[in-house]
Amino acid sequence: MLICSFLNPDGPRPGIVEGDDLYVLEGSMFDQQARRGDKIGLASQARLLPPVMPGKIICLGLNYADHAREQDTGVPPEPLIFLKPPSAVIGPDQTIELLPDMGKVEHETELGVVIGRQGRMIPQEEALKYVLGYTCGNDVSARDYQFKDGQWARAKSFDTFCPLGPWINTDLDPSDLAITCRVNGETRQDSRTSQMIFGVPFLIEYISRVMTLLPGDVILTGTPAGVSPIQPGDVVEVEVEGVGVLRNPVSMRVE
Amino acid sequence: MLICSFLNPDGPRPGIVEGDDLYVLEGSMFDQQARRGDKIGLASQARLLPPVMPGKIICLGLNYADHAREQDTGVPPEPLIFLKPPSAVIGPDQTIELLPDMGKVEHETELGVVIGRQGRMIPQEEALKYVLGYTCGNDVSARDYQFKDGQWARAKSFDTFCPLGPWINTDLDPSDLAITCRVNGETRQDSRTSQMIFGVPFLIEYISRVMTLLPGDVILTGTPAGVSPIQPGDVVEVEVEGVGVLRNPVSMRVE
Repeated sequence: MLICSFLNPDGPRPGIVEGDDLYVLEGSMFDQQARRGDKIGLASQARLLPPVMPGKIICLGLNYADHAREQDTGVPPEPLIFLKPPSAVIGPDQTIELLPDMGKVEHETELGVVIGRQGRMIPQEEALKYVLGYTCGNDVSARDYQFKDGQWARAKSFDTFCPLGPWINTDLDPSDLAITCRVNGETRQDSRTSQMIFGVPFLIEYISRVMTLLPGDVILTGTPAGVSPIQPGDVVEVEVEGVGVLRNPVSMRVE
Repeated sequence: MLICSFLNPDGPRPGIVEGDDLYVLEGSMFDQQARRGDKIGLASQARLLPPVMPGKIICLGLNYADHAREQDTGVPPEPLIFLKPPSAVIGPDQTIELLPDMGKVEHETELGVVIGRQGRMIPQEEALKYVLGYTCGNDVSARDYQFKDGQWARAKSFDTFCPLGPWINTDLDPSDLAITCRVNGETRQDSRTSQMIFGVPFLIEYISRVMTLLPGDVILTGTPAGVSPIQPGDVVEVEVEGVGVLRNPVSMRVE
């Protein structure tokens, strides 16, 4: 099932996408009893929102060996986690906004794991039971700030620096999916989730030993090689096999 | 006015504390029209909750020169920000839980700034208008993980590693308040907020240039010198002049 959020005249609503048909999702997307309601229109014509508004976003650094090499760092001996704030989230087709003094900003295509139920100290054998589904994420990063600060929080926390979407696929095996990124139609990142150093079940075990995972939390599982600068006027497409394409234009923010 | 949250038989409620009297707060704590309602009991006998459940927690590293010296790092040329997850928050008298394999864990007493209204690109001259009030915070940190990972997120994100409270003082000048920390009654940290390298208005300007600040967001403004290890059985008291004492026992978590 593909679960989205869309803007209805009466406000944001969860929906179900089948082909190009958009249905209302009745109930909460986290409720096993949620059902497909009335057909509401075409998904391609709906105003899609971020499929979920996470309470927290836990990200992985250097979780593909080829990306660790291109960043001139070694492969970490255990997962390296950092956080992005919920205020950075945007949905499909929303604009990634740069600031004039920001320096180099790069895309990072990522598989996003959406947590479906609360858990902590989750063993990896049980981990996938805690997952609602998978989405595409872009861990947009201002490299100059990232390396100047040492801590990555500022560089990765700007408003609009966490595109998520276009929806959540609840029926997907995350272990070997094609993951790509195109800028203006040109492929920049092209890998498979099987190339992750630490896979999804291990990451859930590791993170849930630190912090309680709650429904709606999102884990961004790291990016493969090929990150490259983005500029105003670019269009960035993050694609995860079995999910779809998360497309975001880039512009310079004008205050 | 002192605003708290407390556990009522019907669930969490915002309250107002006057002396030891606890009143219901009618409306939202972020609403200027909020008023004092019925007296409900004694604050000292109420089960106080975290005074706010933040959407994000933005923390400052090395914002007191004496602490930067004790950590053997230079004074940063601009604020150094990082994030803690909302799932780490506990309230007054709740227990800071350590894990057996965690190594050295230290307290960090901090002035917490609670945001009252949405803003971004806030000039420092306007900054204090965006503040609901001030509270005490403890940025509990697992040092071995902090230095091993390089990124500070894991070390500072464990459940219970963000005590906040006991309440929010909405009528306080943050520029020169005594700030202390006691462990088992013994003073470990003793400074004044006037010793911050970057003061509250500047921090709000700086952070809001990165991310939109929302009502309930909390800024932890950094810790002075004197951080020290905590052990199961300890009682940690963080005190900010004009706010009060945030007291938390420490125990080993048993799964």
